[in-house]
Amino acid sequence: MTDKLTGQLNFLAEADKMKSILRQTRIADCSRQENDAEHSWHFALTALTLFEYCGIEGVDIDRVINMALVHDLVEIYAGDTFAYDEKGNENKEERENESADKLFSLLPKKQAAEFRSLWEEFDRMETPDAIYASAVDRFQSFHNIYLSGGYTWKKHKVTADKIYKRMEPAKIALPALWDFIERTVNDEIKNGTVIHS
Amino acid sequence: MTDKLTGQLNFLAEADKMKSILRQTRIADCSRQENDAEHSWHFALTALTLFEYCGIEGVDIDRVINMALVHDLVEIYAGDTFAYDEKGNENKEERENESADKLFSLLPKKQAAEFRSLWEEFDRMETPDAIYASAVDRFQSFHNIYLSGGYTWKKHKVTADKIYKRMEPAKIALPALWDFIERTVNDEIKNGTVIHS
Repeated sequence: MTDKLTGQLNFLAEADKMKSILRQTRIADCSRQENDAEHSWHFALTALTLFEYCGIEGVDIDRVINMALVHDLVEIYAGDTFAYDEKGNENKEERENESADKLFSLLPKKQAAEFRSLWEEFDRMETPDAIYASAVDRFQSFHNIYLSGGYTWKKHKVTADKIYKRMEPAKIALPALWDFIERTVNDEIKNGTVIHS
Repeated sequence: MTDKLTGQLNFLAEADKMKSILRQTRIADCSRQENDAEHSWHFALTALTLFEYCGIEGVDIDRVINMALVHDLVEIYAGDTFAYDEKGNENKEERENESADKLFSLLPKKQAAEFRSLWEEFDRMETPDAIYASAVDRFQSFHNIYLSGGYTWKKHKVTADKIYKRMEPAKIALPALWDFIERTVNDEIKNGTVIHS
């Protein structure tokens, strides 16, 4: 077996750690926190299932799915940073860059550059693929928090304006979902899980 | 919101149950069983990472990844059937067909047919895409059992010939991995986790 293949198997072994990186969102029945591996799969499936509603021209669904598969890998060493944690988000970029250096160095150079650039493109949220991917990533979390009874919003005392700000990419990338998003936020305000703002 | 979109969101909510379907394989650190959602993600990432070693002509990696995303969905109602459980495998087809009817009926007809046919193609293991997908699916399990110290092989008293039979698709679809597979089986026989046959 070549050193190259050994490195790729080591990368896949390290990737297994995604199954132990816990997110603030919970699985739908609210019994436990969701992990990054599960979220990445659910994000990819959501991107595929809802693609007909994509409101942006020129999105390549296959690239979006690849983005979903790799977008959280850097959390293996950097950990999950909760979307509404302002302090944690301050040094997120530095932590994630160090993590990317460490993880992707296991791969052959060309592949490392491909995976890293997919993650960076996703993170910058500028290209059509990255905007649709971000909208779906955020919608998967939103939907799961809704399914689990708003647990995460209530626990972290999240306000409606912060949710709307976070869901902004969905406005153009998944416009057909906006009605559901607004209705859910209004219902959750009534239920006392989201703070009116 | 249309009934169609409501059905698709209900499908994505049902899909969340994959996170609670436990497999016989464990996560790499052996601390707990892996679930179907995590496995599907790891399978898709493995298919992407090892694609350069694919030994079959004409494989469409994007279709393989879509297969990975949907290949275990029928287990939501049918449960996971352990590969080496001969009794459980007897009525697997019937259980999984009923599950597919129930789950995919949440989707609009065309999409239901697309997802179902991806799963059926995977299951029949006849097309180039399905053969590569099956090889990767099985290799992900094999690799995870190896990483977790052969726990699952030992627990179920699995013999080397059964592992080789199960790994057969990898012989043509991932020939570069065969050396690693053989070496691992031999090592595990020495370690007493796999029974010599």
